Parts: sequence; structure tokens; C-alpha cells
Amino acid sequence: MTAMDVCADPRALALEILADVRRETEDGPGVTRESYGAGENTALRLLETHAEEMGLVCEYDRARNLWMRLPEDTRTDPFVVIGSHADSVPQGGNFDGLAGIVAGMLVLAGLRDRYASAPPVRVLALRGEESAWYGKAYMGSLSLLGRLPAQALALKHRSGKGTLGEAMALCGVDVEAVRAGEPLLDVAQVRAYLELHIEQGPVMVARGWPAAAVTGIRGNIRHNVVRCIGEAGHSGAVPRWLRKDALLAVAELLSRMDEHWRVLLQMGMDLVMTSGICSTLPQSHAVSVIPGEVRLSFEARSQDAQTMERFYALMRDECAAIEKSRGVRFEFDEKLVTAPATMDAGWVERLKVAAARNGAATGTTNANATATATATVTGAVLEEIPSGAGHDAAVFANAGVPSAMVFVRNENGSHNPHEDMDIDDFLVGVDLFEGALLDIIAPPRAS
Amino acid sequence: MTAMDVCADPRALALEILADVRRETEDGPGVTRESYGAGENTALRLLETHAEEMGLVCEYDRARNLWMRLPEDTRTDPFVVIGSHADSVPQGGNFDGLAGIVAGMLVLAGLRDRYASAPPVRVLALRGEESAWYGKAYMGSLSLLGRLPAQALALKHRSGKGTLGEAMALCGVDVEAVRAGEPLLDVAQVRAYLELHIEQGPVMVARGWPAAAVTGIRGNIRHNVVRCIGEAGHSGAVPRWLRKDALLAVAELLSRMDEHWRVLLQMGMDLVMTSGICSTLPQSHAVSVIPGEVRLSFEARSQDAQTMERFYALMRDECAAIEKSRGVRFEFDEKLVTAPATMDAGWVERLKVAAARNGAATGTTNANATATATATVTGAVLEEIPSGAGHDAAVFANAGVPSAMVFVRNENGSHNPHEDMDIDDFLVGVDLFEGALLDIIAPPRAS
Repeated sequence: MTAMDVCADPRALALEILADVRRETEDGPGVTRESYGAGENTALRLLETHAEEMGLVCEYDRARNLWMRLPEDTRTDPFVVIGSHADSVPQGGNFDGLAGIVAGMLVLAGLRDRYASAPPVRVLALRGEESAWYGKAYMGSLSLLGRLPAQALALKHRSGKGTLGEAMALCGVDVEAVRAGEPLLDVAQVRAYLELHIEQGPVMVARGWPAAAVTGIRGNIRHNVVRCIGEAGHSGAVPRWLRKDALLAVAELLSRMDEHWRVLLQMGMDLVMTSGICSTLPQSHAVSVIPGEVRLSFEARSQDAQTMERFYALMRDECAAIEKSRGVRFEFDEKLVTAPATMDAGWVERLKVAAARNGAATGTTNANATATATATVTGAVLEEIPSGAGHDAAVFANAGVPSAMVFVRNENGSHNPHEDMDIDDFLVGVDLFEGALLDIIAPPRAS
Repeated sequence: MTAMDVCADPRALALEILADVRRETEDGPGVTRESYGAGENTALRLLETHAEEMGLVCEYDRARNLWMRLPEDTRTDPFVVIGSHADSVPQGGNFDGLAGIVAGMLVLAGLRDRYASAPPVRVLALRGEESAWYGKAYMGSLSLLGRLPAQALALKHRSGKGTLGEAMALCGVDVEAVRAGEPLLDVAQVRAYLELHIEQGPVMVARGWPAAAVTGIRGNIRHNVVRCIGEAGHSGAVPRWLRKDALLAVAELLSRMDEHWRVLLQMGMDLVMTSGICSTLPQSHAVSVIPGEVRLSFEARSQDAQTMERFYALMRDECAAIEKSRGVRFEFDEKLVTAPATMDAGWVERLKVAAARNGAATGTTNANATATATATVTGAVLEEIPSGAGHDAAVFANAGVPSAMVFVRNENGSHNPHEDMDIDDFLVGVDLFEGALLDIIAPPRAS
């Protein structure tokens, strides 16, 4: 496919790139693109090849994220970044992250074909967004902005072997610069960060929205490993009053927090709570042994930093109470905090104006608009949605870069091989970015 | 050591046998004697060697349990069996099971040395008592008595590879006879079944009893694997009302049952409840994924069959309620039931009389007796204790054989390498059996 074909058939180009990367990173029913590992490297290499075929210039920054620009774009003044991530969770889906990079490539090529001068837009394929590999998310964007905590470099790989710093070094990252917190990109150079991503929840499918503008991104507080240490014993021979059952202690903790969560939602707070991992110790598993230790992860997310911190403090209080009543002990690994982020109101408005201009392609008209859709446009209404999941856009937003996201409708959630995005919905999202960028780039070529 | 040495120094003989078997079945800090596997075979072979050195005759029954008798004992009339088991849990302790067999050997040799005719006593080293290997306990005694359920032969080894039936066949067991439920021992031949065992709980250490008479053995109801099936999802993107979190469902189940348990103890019932194994699925472990499935074991034990069954039914009711409220599904593997057993009052009394006759060796005198010690003897008082753990004695008792057990004080519980029995306490137990058998054997040789 030549550069000229892009404008003619962006759908075919998108399908081709997505299929190529899927094929080369397949793992069972899904794809595996390990952060700073083989699958991510493969994905970046394939993206580079496609970008070059499209006539784009590729460069890697010192955190080994991949940048794409037009050859004629040698500007030193600020530009808009359209980005997303190239990695995936183990046996995850193909669209999570990758779709946003492909969208950026299509937008850039589409603008070039339609407008006279090189638009102030560059595409960024980030590494290391998924926390599944090292228990830490947004490693690529944080490194780029000099905001990855130095101690994160010591985080162990999920296999228990090797650290994040070691994996980064193998990929060619300037680990010492990352450790020193040196910004590898001048944020003053970035006019805005835009990201297209599949929705990872079920809301847009339920409501029939092909695309939506993200208003904010939930932050999270996490412990990857909380240990509850009790005392093992024979399940028949130790009476209740002499037991220190670590599992029943954890069950009580989770039940209490679950009930608090229910109440706080009733009080109107934004909050989700998850223990994705919870297990008695496999090496001493036996039906007839009182669990002496349980390990679990803990995560709370909210759009409101205070809600998140207070719920976390409540969890620690409950642990202390259970320690006293049950004779167990809770031990916590490092507390990892990702701040919530607000998307830029100006860019949300530009996306809505673009939707109105693009018309019915967004799939919703004013007649069907809900009370929360406040856009005062005469064409299609772009609905608003908060993001429950975290995204690199939150890192840019919290570094002071005006940021915006478009969610694309997607079946079956994400982080699993069954995610299902319609390419038509994806193209609606691409068109929204192109439309929104109209405001800040040169006028169309004379026809 | 010759046969004549036994009477002279039973302590040295016991220490020697125990040390030999420990050395040959060592596994890290503990011992591993797999049911119908290598460690159990090794233990039986060593016991056979020692028995022969002591002048005993060894024979295997069709379930490949090891029997020891005096050469002159060719009786066809009933005899007393002193037995226990030769297997252990993975990396367990050396005394759990083995001590009871060695006790039998010492009693048999001791009686032979002191009394004229061959006493009506035989020693039985049973296989397969531990449920850790196939999720089923008392396999050796149940097979011997024609009471092993045929479907148990299909139970999988804990590794997932191979079945109980296959392992039995490799040991030379007549698997077809076991499958047919054929009794391989005529229980009418068995006057009584006696078993010495370390206590597996902390009560005797706390109360300072070197030995105690067991009054009854708790039964149990078990599921080795209960599956709670919910729906996986992104931990940030799925709101509470759309979640089917399998872990929070299990936490609620365990917390509810824990509270019921507390209340039932207050109401005076005998009950313990344990989930020794509980885990989200390792293959899909991630901090940011709502658990789609949790697997756990469930066990309830009681000395009262009705309490046990009703508590189990309550658990099933709670599962049904949680299924409705949380949109999850519980699936249960085979329900395994071991009936509670009552020890024979006549034999408990004989043990108490022996304690009184043996005097201070039991370590407790009438002056210190608790209200529950009802023995009307003038010497030492043998305290009574229920057994929370199961034992082969329960299988014999439930088959109609008058059965009795002596518990020996033991530190740090059992099923772990740290069990700690004092050999003096063990010899108190051996003396109790010798004393109790006085009633039914020929009078002492003239000195």
C-alpha cells in the first residue's frame, strides 16, 4: 500500500496493520506483547515498517518509545501528540493500545493528504502501559516525562525473575536518565496529547454509542501483595479459640470493605474496589490445614483523589481491627498511587464540534441525546463518558499537558482475547480526531 | 538389637526404629511418605526388617497393609489389633502414624517377654491414612474392611497425574477385591482395635497431660474443590452493579459461615470449619482483573453427625443465596463424608485402670484431676480428650469393632516438620496399652 492509498482506503490500511501485529504476537486465542519484552518489540518493529511504507519518519526516544512524523515536519514549535501503547497483558486482546497507535498513523497520513503544510501532529507508540508485567502501569509515558519513581526500576517481573530496570536496559532504554528522573521530552513542546482507546467496560455497548469523549480518568491506589499471616494448624485438632486462620481474616476484610463500598456508592461517590489475586500458599495447600498465610492484591480506583485515599485508609483501619480480633498480621508491599486526571475541556469541546460537523457518523443525533450530553451542536451529539481504566493520557494530563481521549465501543471488555471492536466505530474515532485538529492546522488545500 | 534386648530397653529400640524410618524418608526439614507411593513403601520395608530382628513374623494382607505377629501365634480365635498408619503428608512429621506402629511393636514384644503364652495381639501398619495425596483419608483401613467406595479408586493424585487405583495396583493391592467392597479381614476376628497417636492440637501441652484416653473422633464432611464462577472484567472499567466478582462472593460465604460457626459454638455444639485451600486462578492472575473464578476446599468436622450435616446444608443454602444476590454460580465436586466415631467405653475404662495401676507415670494424680476425669482409681488419673482429627480407629469403630485410642502429648501440632513428641510420653502410652491388655491375656510368668 502506498502513501497515496491511505486517504483512499484508511479502513483497509487499519485492518492490515492490526492483522499484521496480531499475527506476529499471537499467543493462544489472544496476543501477548510483554512490556519491554519480545511481543512489544515485535509490535513496534512492525509499526515502524508500516509507518515507513506510509512515508512517515520513525525515531525512538531515550525511553525507547517509537515516534512517527512526516518527513517535512522539522518544526521546533509545539505539536499535538496522538499516542497509545504497544504492549498488552498476557493473552490479552489485539485492540487494547494498538488501535490508538494505528488511529494516530491514519490521522497523520489523512491530514497530510488533505492539507497543504505539514500538520503539527506526531504519533507516539508508547511502551510499558500494562501493569500485568511488573505491577506498575504507564512505565513508558512516566519514563518519557521523567516521572517514573526510581524504585520502580527494581520491581520484579511477574515470573519472579528479572527487574523492570534490567528489561528496559535490554531494550536500549537510557536507564540512568530514567532513574535520575530526567524529562526525555519537553512537555512545553506538547500542545496536547490525544488518545483513542477501546472502552474496557460495557457501558457504550449497552447505550449504543459508537464513540464517546472521555471526561476524566480514574486514579488508583494499589498493593500488588498484601500478606495476611496467621498460624497453620490441623483443621480438626485446633479449636476455634486457638486458631489464627489467615483466610477467614481475609474473608472478613473483603466482606467489610465490600459493604463499605456499597454504602459509599449510595452516598454518590465514584469508587471501585478489586482484589484480582487472592490465594492460600500453593506449597502448603491441604484441605485439612488451617491456612497460615494468604496473599492478595488490593486496588481502589476513583475519579476523586480524596475518595480513593480515604477508602484506602479505611482498609488499613479494618486490617488493624482484624489483627486485634483474630491474632493475624497484615504486611503490605509498596503502596502504588496513580492520580486521577481530568481531560481538557477545550479539547472535549473540539471533539464535540467535530462530531456535530461529521454528522450522523457518530451514530447519535440530538433527538436521542441524554440529559448529560451538553453539546450545543446541530449535527450528531458526542456523548461523554468517564474512564474507569487508567491510560497514558492521565500521565500527560497530570504533567500539565492538555489531554483528551476518544473511547470506541467494544464488546466483552478488555484484557482478554474476546474484546471486539467494529472497524466502523474505530473510523468514527479517527474522524473525530481529524475534525478536532482542523481548528489548529492550516486550512484545506484549494480543490 | 536382639529380641531379648526389647524388654531391657524399649526406649532405645523405639528411638532406633523412629530414627531409621525418618532418615530413609527425609524430605527437607520433614518426612514425605506418600500413600501407596515410595515413602510409604520404604517405611513398611524398614518396619518389616526391624520386626523380623525382634523375632516377629510379617505378612501383608490383600490391601498390602503390613501385619506383625509372634511366630507362636497361630490362633484362629479373635485377637486385639494395635495399629496406625505408615504414610505421612508431604513434608510432614515423623511421629504422625509411625509412633502408633512402633508402640504396637513394643507392646507385642513386651508382652511376649513377660507372659507365658502368645498374647492375642497383632500389630497392623496401615497404608493410606492421609487425605493429602488423593483427597480421601483412611484408604488402607477402608480397603481392608471392604468399605472404600468404588469411585474413590478414580480419585486423582494431588499432582493431577494418576489415580488412587493405579497407585494401589503398583503396590500389589488386589484392586478388584477393593472395588467389589470385599472385606479382606473378618471383623469378627478382631476383639478390639487400639491406636496410639500424637495429639495434633495444643490442648495436652496446655494442660500438662503426657497421655490421655480418646473418647470419640470427629467425623467430617468435605469438598476438595468448590468452584465459584463469576465473570472476569477490567477492575477499573466495570461498575459495581455489572460485576460478578467470584472472590467477593467467596469472602461473603466464608464470613457468613464463620459467623454461624461462632454462634453454634456458643450454643454448645461441637464444630470446626476450615477452607484450607482458596485461590483465584493462577493462570489469569492480574491485579487489575475482577476475579472470574475462585476455587476453594470446604470442610466441617464434628463429633455429632447431625451437627455436621446440618452445618453443611446451611453452607449450601448460603451458596444459593449468594448465587442469587451476586450472579455467581457455585459448583461442587463429590461430597466426602467420614462418620464420627465413639470409642469403646470398656476399653477407655481399662486404660484408666491401667493408668491407676501404673501410677505416677501418667503424670497426673487425683489431686489435680479435673471435673471431667471420672475414673475412680487410686493411682494416677488418665484424662479424657476428644479427637478433633480423624483416625483409622474411627473406621474400625464404625465397622463395629470396639476401639480405643491413647493420645500422646506433642508440641507444634502435626502435618508439619515441627511436631515434637517426648519419648517418655510415648512410653507412658505404650505402658497404658500393656496395662490394659493385662485383663485379657494369660497371667504373668512365675518369676
